[in-house]
Amino acid sequence: MLDFTSFQKKWTPIINDYLTQHLTDEVENPKFREIMLYSVVAGGKRLRPLLFLATLATLDRPIDSRELRIACGIELIHTYSLIHDDLPAMDNDDYRRGRLTSHKKWGEAEAILAGDALLPLGVQWIAEGSQDYRLATIITAAVGANGMVGGQYLDIDSTNNDQVADDVKLIDQMEWLKTGCLIEACVKLATTYADASDTIQTDLIDFARAFGRAYQIYDDLVDVVQTSEEAGKATHKDEAVGKNNTLTQLGIDKSRAELQALIDRAQRDLTNVNGDLLNGFLALYQKVM
Amino acid sequence: MLDFTSFQKKWTPIINDYLTQHLTDEVENPKFREIMLYSVVAGGKRLRPLLFLATLATLDRPIDSRELRIACGIELIHTYSLIHDDLPAMDNDDYRRGRLTSHKKWGEAEAILAGDALLPLGVQWIAEGSQDYRLATIITAAVGANGMVGGQYLDIDSTNNDQVADDVKLIDQMEWLKTGCLIEACVKLATTYADASDTIQTDLIDFARAFGRAYQIYDDLVDVVQTSEEAGKATHKDEAVGKNNTLTQLGIDKSRAELQALIDRAQRDLTNVNGDLLNGFLALYQKVM
Repeated sequence: MLDFTSFQKKWTPIINDYLTQHLTDEVENPKFREIMLYSVVAGGKRLRPLLFLATLATLDRPIDSRELRIACGIELIHTYSLIHDDLPAMDNDDYRRGRLTSHKKWGEAEAILAGDALLPLGVQWIAEGSQDYRLATIITAAVGANGMVGGQYLDIDSTNNDQVADDVKLIDQMEWLKTGCLIEACVKLATTYADASDTIQTDLIDFARAFGRAYQIYDDLVDVVQTSEEAGKATHKDEAVGKNNTLTQLGIDKSRAELQALIDRAQRDLTNVNGDLLNGFLALYQKVM
Repeated sequence: MLDFTSFQKKWTPIINDYLTQHLTDEVENPKFREIMLYSVVAGGKRLRPLLFLATLATLDRPIDSRELRIACGIELIHTYSLIHDDLPAMDNDDYRRGRLTSHKKWGEAEAILAGDALLPLGVQWIAEGSQDYRLATIITAAVGANGMVGGQYLDIDSTNNDQVADDVKLIDQMEWLKTGCLIEACVKLATTYADASDTIQTDLIDFARAFGRAYQIYDDLVDVVQTSEEAGKATHKDEAVGKNNTLTQLGIDKSRAELQALIDRAQRDLTNVNGDLLNGFLALYQKVM
């Protein structure tokens, strides 16, 4: 099995090509297609599709066009969430992945609709690639009211709300829903698709939970540790706009300690599976340590 | 088999109860649940779930909780589309189904997120109810970039665009995508779920296409023929905001003639199936004739 760096190097351009090629082939209206493509090909680490594919590789499953379709469906859904999060009514961000956000570039209605089109297209690719209704239920639950969108609602609802600033449990839940749920789903989609045994499924999903919870803390740390040039988006912004998150609550040092504890837990969860490749994903977090 | 009026009278309250009950049980955050419920229980004819169920009945399939879950999933998706269409960046409507639109009542971020949650929940219910990945692909394709959202994009893109005012083909396509695609999908979901024979499937989908295309002409006619009190939303608005549609193009009389031609075609499509119940849906259009 490839190590993480080789795996990433091999599959990232294949994922990027698939996204460009299939959006171009499958979206009929050329102007609307351009708006959708603009955000999808803006870059990004392709972390979620890579995590799905790496979990399949961990389970000794081959990766072909069907698996790639599922992986890229996840990325479409992730991109939709970024477009809507950036909207004026939400986080009101002007830059994302180093370029103008969708609504700044194309207009607000266009950005809402691009997101509204990427979400079902992502689910469609996952359903078509897997030919398994269970994967459609996993992804839709992960991004819905009790998942990603529910987390975004808690975020909106708790911003500039002093009562929430000390509510550890609520902030923990918000960060889990916003980011962790979709990351967990990448692994769950793979274990379900590969019909993994219960024991292995449990270990891998435990890993995904620790990795996913860690990701939001990492993302919050990026906001204060990196310059906006490094991050490709506005940083040092959360505190200014009254966001409550693990970082504003614990401070940098304790957040780093919490992140390290989650990394350790994620590594332990991989002890009994063929976990070298998935372990490599944790290296991402070194950037803020 | 029940006639249309009895069918509607029997199933509408069951659909309404299912929606209220299951949103209440399945959406964990009580505040967010209230926002989602507000738009879903605002009324409406439940035309799409009724059409799905009536097609099943036409195919002699029993209707139980699984079928009801699919039907109500369609209604959740329809409701999401109304919430997003009403947003300030889109049609900027203050009233819908006789009450404040979601963003006027709860705020813009909340309305965007309520829509973003209803869409995947609807797909989830359809996937869970059917346990068939094909239904997930049918619904996601119908509401995506080459379907409903693509139509909404054409609408935005063509509003106040004089070059489009005479483009019969483009306006026809826009109206089909905006409304027809989802109505066709209600029938296609049922014929796929029931594994209908190819001949019957063709007849029923032809019916759905004529019925769906007619629906948008009907909806445009409502805009000029009904008072806003009757319609429960702002009327006489399309022309004022520079919308191009079949009606602004053909005028009232020719639009009515076009609607009648589509009704006739829809009736013909039902000749060889057990079509009495589905025929009853066409009575809706008498209101604007």
